[in-house]
Amino acid sequence: MKVGLIQNSASVKVDTNIEKSITLIRLAAEKGAQIICLQELFASQYFCQTCESGPFQLAETLESSFVRQFRDLAAELEIVLVLPYFEKRAEGIFHNSAAVIDADGSIAGHYRKMHIPNDPQFYEKFYFTPGDTGYDSFQTRYGKVGVCICWDQWFPEAARLTALTGAQIIFYPTAIGWHPDDLEVEGLAESQLDAWRVVQRGHAVANSCFVAAANRCGTESSPDPNDKPIQFWGHSFIADPSGTLLAEAGDEDEVVIAEVDLDSIAERRRMWGFFRDRRIDSYDRISTHGSEVSS
Amino acid sequence: MKVGLIQNSASVKVDTNIEKSITLIRLAAEKGAQIICLQELFASQYFCQTCESGPFQLAETLESSFVRQFRDLAAELEIVLVLPYFEKRAEGIFHNSAAVIDADGSIAGHYRKMHIPNDPQFYEKFYFTPGDTGYDSFQTRYGKVGVCICWDQWFPEAARLTALTGAQIIFYPTAIGWHPDDLEVEGLAESQLDAWRVVQRGHAVANSCFVAAANRCGTESSPDPNDKPIQFWGHSFIADPSGTLLAEAGDEDEVVIAEVDLDSIAERRRMWGFFRDRRIDSYDRISTHGSEVSS
Repeated sequence: MKVGLIQNSASVKVDTNIEKSITLIRLAAEKGAQIICLQELFASQYFCQTCESGPFQLAETLESSFVRQFRDLAAELEIVLVLPYFEKRAEGIFHNSAAVIDADGSIAGHYRKMHIPNDPQFYEKFYFTPGDTGYDSFQTRYGKVGVCICWDQWFPEAARLTALTGAQIIFYPTAIGWHPDDLEVEGLAESQLDAWRVVQRGHAVANSCFVAAANRCGTESSPDPNDKPIQFWGHSFIADPSGTLLAEAGDEDEVVIAEVDLDSIAERRRMWGFFRDRRIDSYDRISTHGSEVSS
Repeated sequence: MKVGLIQNSASVKVDTNIEKSITLIRLAAEKGAQIICLQELFASQYFCQTCESGPFQLAETLESSFVRQFRDLAAELEIVLVLPYFEKRAEGIFHNSAAVIDADGSIAGHYRKMHIPNDPQFYEKFYFTPGDTGYDSFQTRYGKVGVCICWDQWFPEAARLTALTGAQIIFYPTAIGWHPDDLEVEGLAESQLDAWRVVQRGHAVANSCFVAAANRCGTESSPDPNDKPIQFWGHSFIADPSGTLLAEAGDEDEVVIAEVDLDSIAERRRMWGFFRDRRIDSYDRISTHGSEVSS
């Protein structure tokens, strides 16, 4: 079974981005990919560099023709598709979401990004209501698929809770890049990229599962002329349950493909025993903010 | 501030092992290490390769002269010492524990290994009652120190819960090696070692803290003549909050030292925002075994 990740730069034109994504999905399918994941908010540029009203116009519903065209594509190509999108739930309630589309075009699952960042030029708390789906995985034709989104990838809780529902692979649609100031500090850019890789490879190890992150690439300007452009770092990758990279992109448009044996996960979980040995009687304080000050 | 890890092979003679450890602690202190951590069960060979009555004779109490001599040493050298030991709590109740000894020789904290493995030639569930201390960190003269032990290192929950109490650095006294059969599969040994490194480097990233693992080295035979000897893999390391290795041992006796700035942790936690953005309303199921079958 082959997994494919679509990594690409985005233009200011939504139609062009969608066309490009469809072209790359077809290419990945031609190369044999059966589960394909797009990058976070792939239909547009990353609009969270500032807080504006305009980008809310980009939001779609799960029932939209926008999603429908990808359901049709999945059915045509007989692929499972992890489709991130900017979701309009109601006036004033928007989510950063992903649909898992099964190989017959049906909706196998839906996830709303649980962890929302808010940092300079990544003002996501302005746009996205934190998700209320919790963490889950979805049985598809080709395997049991979990989805978390971008900032979720820094939270071991999200990976663990997804894996505990049986996920054999966790996908992370992502939009991460270097804040321009960070590029001026020697070694910082590479250190941030490696931290991002390492924490996710760690999730693969701790949860005896595959992890696959699809990140955007290219440089995108901010609407604020005082901002410098963000350089999205690409480097989409697929890691096995030992944390070993099976495939990794560079920093340009690319379809990343790796062979994965999802059926191997059950045996791995039996032989490594991490789930067996969890001390569920001792984890209650995970659901608190901790005790540094009060203790 | 410098941290030191003591990595060494162990003989069958406890007195010799203790002497060697003291020599290496003195060496680390001479090199400037102010917080020093020994490997798991450093006073003996790793006795869990089989299930026997004999090794229980090795157990000590926190009040023992065994621990006392290291308290005196810590006070003399003005070092903080993370001292793993086989703890006798009561007849029939033994723990795999570690004392954190402050630089004046007082006991700053005590931890009992929470996660206990049980795999071929690592039959720890026979010897050790799972710990009841929970996860904590301890203010010492040189920083706020968390301790987990060996198998704990595969569990992101343990690192997170320790970090949430304010740990600036988490030590992992360890006894991990290659099961002899694994050495015969091409690439497996290196893949296991890297999984071990990656999952702990991931804890450093996810929790914005330093991580330092002291592992034993050398080959130790099993009392069972049908067993092949275990090769403990050494490779003790110190990682920074980006997951970058600051220092790493080879596979022989070694004192590993790295400079760490524990005061940098507060700023890192402020600027990366991982603790800020935790969804504590959504983590309840961490305290369950999950839902793969029932859902």
